[in-house]
Amino acid sequence: MAAIGIDLGGTKILAALVEEGVATAKEKRSTPRTATPGNVLDAVAAMVDRLDPEERADMLGIGVPGPVAPDSGVLAMAANLTGWSGPVDVAAELSARCGGRRVVVGNDVNCATLAEARLGAGRAANDLIGVFMGTGVGAGLVLDGHLRIGPRGYAGELGHIYVNLRDFEVSPIGRGELEDYAGRRMMEARARARHDAGESTDLLDLAGEGRMKSSIWAAALDAGDTVASEIVDDAAEALATALASATTLLDIELVVLGGGMAERLGAAFRADLERRVQRRTFGGAAVRVVAPALGSVGPAIGAALFAEETQP
Amino acid sequence: MAAIGIDLGGTKILAALVEEGVATAKEKRSTPRTATPGNVLDAVAAMVDRLDPEERADMLGIGVPGPVAPDSGVLAMAANLTGWSGPVDVAAELSARCGGRRVVVGNDVNCATLAEARLGAGRAANDLIGVFMGTGVGAGLVLDGHLRIGPRGYAGELGHIYVNLRDFEVSPIGRGELEDYAGRRMMEARARARHDAGESTDLLDLAGEGRMKSSIWAAALDAGDTVASEIVDDAAEALATALASATTLLDIELVVLGGGMAERLGAAFRADLERRVQRRTFGGAAVRVVAPALGSVGPAIGAALFAEETQP
Repeated sequence: MAAIGIDLGGTKILAALVEEGVATAKEKRSTPRTATPGNVLDAVAAMVDRLDPEERADMLGIGVPGPVAPDSGVLAMAANLTGWSGPVDVAAELSARCGGRRVVVGNDVNCATLAEARLGAGRAANDLIGVFMGTGVGAGLVLDGHLRIGPRGYAGELGHIYVNLRDFEVSPIGRGELEDYAGRRMMEARARARHDAGESTDLLDLAGEGRMKSSIWAAALDAGDTVASEIVDDAAEALATALASATTLLDIELVVLGGGMAERLGAAFRADLERRVQRRTFGGAAVRVVAPALGSVGPAIGAALFAEETQP
Repeated sequence: MAAIGIDLGGTKILAALVEEGVATAKEKRSTPRTATPGNVLDAVAAMVDRLDPEERADMLGIGVPGPVAPDSGVLAMAANLTGWSGPVDVAAELSARCGGRRVVVGNDVNCATLAEARLGAGRAANDLIGVFMGTGVGAGLVLDGHLRIGPRGYAGELGHIYVNLRDFEVSPIGRGELEDYAGRRMMEARARARHDAGESTDLLDLAGEGRMKSSIWAAALDAGDTVASEIVDDAAEALATALASATTLLDIELVVLGGGMAERLGAAFRADLERRVQRRTFGGAAVRVVAPALGSVGPAIGAALFAEETQP
């Protein structure tokens, strides 16, 4: 059985031909920035043609950066894709561009989590939460072996779990949700606010005119920057709190922690996080925190698996 | 099809003969206080005999106040049952006392939630969270039509979700978990601490030597007691925060809110809570908060349904 899996992100598109769970061929390109949804899907279809000119794959799965209600094929909205502010029927639009083949659409983080659960770091687990730290904090849930999607496709919004009720409507930065502490966008806002208040930090010099990428945070930590280490410490505390809540509520023993920020912070951050989560779980229930095993092709593989597992 | 459902609580035991989802006969007694697990199960078996002397029911379901790993039949521990501090094989022990009939053991709050999902306030819903406010705060989860139990039987521990990371290890009362604000035991501790610090409140006079039962909280609120109303307001804020987190993480649109404290606080509390949750959900996703529909026999009915739905 062969399927094509596509990871449609805000900065890049990765497509893979997946046979028996292995990506046997790959295509990658940057996401057209000033294009309409139709233009982006034209680009995706061209990648599919190059990847599989003989149409060996009889179905396509695509992971998209926003909520998709089950079996709808429709991306409700995508903040990270220019021009995708309204619903797009990705299944119909892409199928029409790919010879009428069946297209299954899922959330990108859900697809990445499914891949880790089936073939990656969670392949021995029946239950896990996949967490991806980047600009924001996204997550996917596999419970009793099944991906939890939810009726509106919203399941897994760990970034919007509350970790601090006292910040609700009174904090200048965020309202007490996990992402307000552990998402790179808000971590940058906190660093800039502390700089503006007169604190010294390398983060602004390192970033210059650009964004504070994960590599900049890692460099500032290596240099012993106090502001950076305090903000990362707060991020770890907030993430541990949210993960203790989620794993306790759902009785989950495994966290797969990925995403650009987590990769940069590395094994020491994961080990520290695991200790913090463990101290907070109900009755000290054991929770492991591990890295993803599938690398950057994981979400595309997951999209192909998602298509294969979804009943027509 | 007939099954017997039993709700084994810290203060009372309720058993019901359930036929086609209806409790056609009931037995109720107080829980033996100074007994061993064996004595308690003797009492349960005697109730089963009185309820169904002709053994029309071919299986028994029992809801117990503690975690039960799936298909184990074993209650790991029960803080509210005297002498049940270690594991008890309830399935084997009760089956031996009931003519060898099949016994399925589940968590009491999970059973109550299942009953509301199948026959009660959530019978039109595929997904819901059942929350029960009493001495603590318990919950059960139905996701995609299935009860989520978890590998260790811990799922649904909403009371141990964190709502305030700043209280972790620094607060004299609790460590920032929902139950520290919205469970009656900790609400009483807060009231007593404020009284000891010199604040005036009717709650202590009303309670006298006894515990601050739900009726006492209701009476103090009716009398306009400031301490009572502030503690209940904090409980509502904490509960709204935890429910916004849980419903966002899982994409759930329905909360069934029961338990002694919630019943006493009534429809106004539910409506206020619904507004607070709604303000906190991701993207303002709609969440309804409703009362249970099945009354005090709900958990026993749920235990019978749980037995029927569990594959032998």
